Amino acid sequence: MPADPVPNAFYAQSGGVTAVINASALAVIETARNHPDKIGQVYAGKNGILGALREELIDVSRETPEKIKGLLTTPSGAFGSCRYKLKGIEDNRAEYERLIEVFKAHNIRYFFYNGGGDSADTCQKVSEIGAKMGFPLQAIHVPKTIDNDLPFTDNCPGFGSVAKYVALSTQEAALDIASMCATSTKVFILEVMGRHAGWIAGAAGLAARSEAEAPHIILFPEIAFDETRFLAKVEQTVEKFGFCVIVASEGTQTADGELLSGSKSRDAFGHVQLGGLAPKLANLIKQAHGYKYHWAVADYLQRAARHIASQTDLDQAYALGKAAVEMAAAGENAVMPTIVRVMDAPYEWTIGRAPLNEVANQEKLMPKSFFTADGFGITDEARRYFAPLIIGEAYPPYRNGLPDYVTLENHLLAQKLPTDNRW
Amino acid sequence: MPADPVPNAFYAQSGGVTAVINASALAVIETARNHPDKIGQVYAGKNGILGALREELIDVSRETPEKIKGLLTTPSGAFGSCRYKLKGIEDNRAEYERLIEVFKAHNIRYFFYNGGGDSADTCQKVSEIGAKMGFPLQAIHVPKTIDNDLPFTDNCPGFGSVAKYVALSTQEAALDIASMCATSTKVFILEVMGRHAGWIAGAAGLAARSEAEAPHIILFPEIAFDETRFLAKVEQTVEKFGFCVIVASEGTQTADGELLSGSKSRDAFGHVQLGGLAPKLANLIKQAHGYKYHWAVADYLQRAARHIASQTDLDQAYALGKAAVEMAAAGENAVMPTIVRVMDAPYEWTIGRAPLNEVANQEKLMPKSFFTADGFGITDEARRYFAPLIIGEAYPPYRNGLPDYVTLENHLLAQKLPTDNRW
Repeated sequence: MPADPVPNAFYAQSGGVTAVINASALAVIETARNHPDKIGQVYAGKNGILGALREELIDVSRETPEKIKGLLTTPSGAFGSCRYKLKGIEDNRAEYERLIEVFKAHNIRYFFYNGGGDSADTCQKVSEIGAKMGFPLQAIHVPKTIDNDLPFTDNCPGFGSVAKYVALSTQEAALDIASMCATSTKVFILEVMGRHAGWIAGAAGLAARSEAEAPHIILFPEIAFDETRFLAKVEQTVEKFGFCVIVASEGTQTADGELLSGSKSRDAFGHVQLGGLAPKLANLIKQAHGYKYHWAVADYLQRAARHIASQTDLDQAYALGKAAVEMAAAGENAVMPTIVRVMDAPYEWTIGRAPLNEVANQEKLMPKSFFTADGFGITDEARRYFAPLIIGEAYPPYRNGLPDYVTLENHLLAQKLPTDNRW
Repeated sequence: MPADPVPNAFYAQSGGVTAVINASALAVIETARNHPDKIGQVYAGKNGILGALREELIDVSRETPEKIKGLLTTPSGAFGSCRYKLKGIEDNRAEYERLIEVFKAHNIRYFFYNGGGDSADTCQKVSEIGAKMGFPLQAIHVPKTIDNDLPFTDNCPGFGSVAKYVALSTQEAALDIASMCATSTKVFILEVMGRHAGWIAGAAGLAARSEAEAPHIILFPEIAFDETRFLAKVEQTVEKFGFCVIVASEGTQTADGELLSGSKSRDAFGHVQLGGLAPKLANLIKQAHGYKYHWAVADYLQRAARHIASQTDLDQAYALGKAAVEMAAAGENAVMPTIVRVMDAPYEWTIGRAPLNEVANQEKLMPKSFFTADGFGITDEARRYFAPLIIGEAYPPYRNGLPDYVTLENHLLAQKLPTDNRW
């Protein structure tokens, strides 16, 4: 009688992608190979969890070693990601049963889900339903979100690179305005991501080493927007320094929770789709003070900016993917590896763990102690937190003047189940 | 009797700044030092030509050698630039007379003006008036404009770096959308600079190596915008490839010259201040096809992006500053050094010259042969033109995770003339 085959692993990317999520994928693939007695193949979901529901499993072993190595330096989700939130088990048991069927068919006993808060919730549910259905799975969540809003971890892979991009973009644009403000633009607004938490906007504060330096004003979702105070601060800044640079979180809102951007369209998770805040702020300023303005909306450029990724961020993304597989190989389940900060300066960190049932559906906002008294800036405590996350330039290779990013072949495994068109 | 003192040089930055204009400044300063028999001190105008009118002359010799060297890796205008166009000599003779007075007072006989088309015109006029007033000046124009619209030169310093930034930002954002499009964003729009000429948007085309790759649609000011054809192309692209990436010049306009962005405010040169095109296009697409969209407006981020400047661009910016001083030392006047392309691949270039009276107030648009038949892309001929301009990564030094850009002291010379408050 042959020995039971070594069980396989499923890996999927979820939600908004980042500059370094593929480094976590690479770590999962490489680390799994170090445990041939425990883990057989790594199959990746085509377009995230949908790949499991549709039985569209990517056979990672068919990629060339060069392409797999290229994951370290390629932004975005190389296997496709998705915005698809599994419903509660009671609401849609069929969906979970389908997942288990597919996993059974391909002898998949490890579930690595690389995402943010919503994905941690899904990961927890998959672990529960597997147990209930008598097909125990080890579900490990690999944290990733540019929003930096997961609890228990010092920070989230993807964030450090956005933080670096946003801080240096603010620094560069501010030099431009400083050199032009005598006769031209007086106000510059950079709109950045951040629906509910101001981490990204806050990190832009690293560009300022003194009150005179940009950004002069940061708008956070956590601090109620007060038009009068804002406009007064803009005017004071222009009068004092000749120009004013503003970094605004897309989720900036008034005390009664009204988003300044005002858009009402929603994505699949029910989140409001934002954008358009920067021109709105510019218009307010123009009407109040008449200053010439410019504005930029970084949008996807900020989270895809692998060309200037933070080395610290890249190292942590890899370390968390690696830790996830090692936890699985050690028999752990329903857990998420975390970054534990040992020291601010010099920055020291290590890997910790958090139980998934405590992680899911929590959002970590910026603490009060990170905001200056007027709410328009960050404190030294915040600086100590942000500073190490942007250290190091993890440059990709270039070819013909552009980054030499890889595109995988993404060969699918032969399907073993009848086609199911529900997904 | 003492010998006549060696005459000094005036250097000023004009108009919108670039990632590499300070490299031209450095070249002027360093090359002038190689001609101590011909050129005494280099004085820089504080805020461009206004520095001459206000007698605010920066004493470059008081900066540390480290700061001066830092000009090579620092974006924006280190001495301040301005949007200030001198009127015609007949309209405002007093302005020209004031310039000559200031130059006389400081024994300035060389005028290096670092700018675009408007500045070439000013430079030409300064040369004329000097001769008319019996104080002959050698006026040399150092070309610079991200718009790449100067005649006679193969390309303009500042453009290659914007081209690189825009092409790689398109490439990165496209990878993001490609990985999300199954369940989320289908259309991404990147708005880039370019009022009358589509050079910047065109360079983004380098990101696509095949029809399937982004950008799928480029909108140029030179090609009349046709809403029906545009919307049809968006739909075809989404149906064929799953998503559509659009790069749009801010100056995109309809056949009757109506700007799509619609803004009516104007700058000091009478140019319409643009912005807001991307959300407008997104809205058109949403209404016609219902696709989920994202958009970004790069604005100043693109022209200040020294962190990923093109080495070719940097080399040329330096070479032109150097050539300008060598031309001055050789007795030339009313001339602009140019880049002459010798070969596309491998790229070879050399320095040429153009007489200023032929350069001034001309705008070089993209040639017809650079646009594909449907007007939404660039041809292979265009690719051969753009490709070498983005080669090489001229990384700046970093400190604490951010570029270590210099800020000069900008000490002013003691004034020799009575204060004149007209400027």
